[in-house]
Amino acid sequence: MEAKRSLLAIFLLLSFLSISTAAPTRKTRTRKPCKSMVFYFHDVIYNGHNAKNATSAIVGSPQWGNKTILTGQNHFGDLVVFDDPITLDNNLHSKPVGRAQGFYIYDKKDIFTAWLGFSFVFNSTQHKGSINFAGADPLMNKTRDISVIGGTGDFFMARGVATLMTDAFEGEVYFRLRTDINLYECW
Amino acid sequence: MEAKRSLLAIFLLLSFLSISTAAPTRKTRTRKPCKSMVFYFHDVIYNGHNAKNATSAIVGSPQWGNKTILTGQNHFGDLVVFDDPITLDNNLHSKPVGRAQGFYIYDKKDIFTAWLGFSFVFNSTQHKGSINFAGADPLMNKTRDISVIGGTGDFFMARGVATLMTDAFEGEVYFRLRTDINLYECW
Amino acid sequence: MEAKRSLLAIFLLLSFLSISTAAPTRKTRTRKPCKSMVFYFHDVIYNGHNAKNATSAIVGSPQWGNKTILTGQNHFGDLVVFDDPITLDNNLHSKPVGRAQGFYIYDKKDIFTAWLGFSFVFNSTQHKGSINFAGADPLMNKTRDISVIGGTGDFFMARGVATLMTDAFEGEVYFRLRTDINLYECW
Repeated sequence: MEAKRSLLAIFLLLSFLSISTAAPTRKTRTRKPCKSMVFYFHDVIYNGHNAKNATSAIVGSPQWGNKTILTGQNHFGDLVVFDDPITLDNNLHSKPVGRAQGFYIYDKKDIFTAWLGFSFVFNSTQHKGSINFAGADPLMNKTRDISVIGGTGDFFMARGVATLMTDAFEGEVYFRLRTDINLYECW
Repeated sequence: MEAKRSLLAIFLLLSFLSISTAAPTRKTRTRKPCKSMVFYFHDVIYNGHNAKNATSAIVGSPQWGNKTILTGQNHFGDLVVFDDPITLDNNLHSKPVGRAQGFYIYDKKDIFTAWLGFSFVFNSTQHKGSINFAGADPLMNKTRDISVIGGTGDFFMARGVATLMTDAFEGEVYFRLRTDINLYECW
Repeated sequence: MEAKRSLLAIFLLLSFLSISTAAPTRKTRTRKPCKSMVFYFHDVIYNGHNAKNATSAIVGSPQWGNKTILTGQNHFGDLVVFDDPITLDNNLHSKPVGRAQGFYIYDKKDIFTAWLGFSFVFNSTQHKGSINFAGADPLMNKTRDISVIGGTGDFFMARGVATLMTDAFEGEVYFRLRTDINLYECW
């Protein structure tokens, strides 16, 4: 009699288990990051006079633009390549912990917005490897979310979301972006 | 005796369960989308005369090209930046529900084909967030598949495949792409 | 008595099972590829004299550069579009099995490094579909890892890491990259 009741309990448990395993990948995804990091990166754009300090340069522009001055209409059509230092705090002169490398293209006439494709490249005792990003950056918004589309080394197979915030800018020569990286897939 | 037979049944069930949980992520992936959506987007390329209506512009070209006319050899080398309206139907004049923003580069001399990096950006009551795309677009094919490489907001962490179809085109000034988005990872 | 002992064993087994299903996606990820492939691709860059053989061309350059000769400072700012043959061995003249299509941008002044966005496009009896890549390529390193950010057709929803190795180069006109693709997500 007792054995039978135990069997019933087991069957109930089994039913529960088989339900929970039926849709394993969907149900168990949580929006809690498996890794969170904050970095700053610093972009000094070439303007014809700052070749020594510049970390980025215009390399494509529309018919009405040129390559030393960001064009009108919210820079629509300007393609910029960058190799920017990454720091742990918001100080341009702090020791870089890596480089942000890639490009952005201003892609809208009526407001400032850009499309980004770039990587964070690390090669220090702290981090080795890269994090790859892509997405739209409507840069007048206080926060903008882009995608972490992959990673290598310490960030092998990473996926997640990075939140960009303009931390400072000086005219059209310097800007600093705070980047809050939240990974939701860690291997 | 009955209890023993039940026990046997349980053991068999358990064996089955332990097999099905042994390789959980691989076996349970289905090719059934967790979300499907259809959108159209409309590209009006700048040609020197249509600055007001143009939604895209040539910003890079090979040595033999220029920035007002798409170059010969199937536009090989032309880089185009776009900010195109997204509509729910195939009418350019329908109310846009978002913007398709990014770039394409024609990358082959003997046929029309391009490489795309762009986002669908939504900010309406219906959808908030972005979907990020990348991939090859051999545009003479009736359908072309590219990758959904990430998403934010309503499309947090999305992955999937988007099928592009040229729905209409007018010379080298206007084209309309139907985009069937199928997400296979939804969070 | 025997039944009770069996029940105990079952309970222990169940406990174990419920633990192993509690965190299904995290714990079960292995770094063993579900698919591995090796390919070579060949880039012949246009230099003003080799229009017939060239498979790539400069389409963006900084203010101080031009579109027939890769610029100084480690080609910083040069944007190159390519449509390169993919072969199974390291022979440029082997029958291509697909095309590598996309772009790279040299993005650093003091060493050679580039950012890549491209696809492998296959349309043969062996492979149909595409593999999409993105990442940083510090090309003076013997091996460099970039991300497989998606795939279509035979490579539906693929994710992984590709290791690039410069297999050969001739001045600034030709280079050959060995690409070891390891997929860790296969559908």
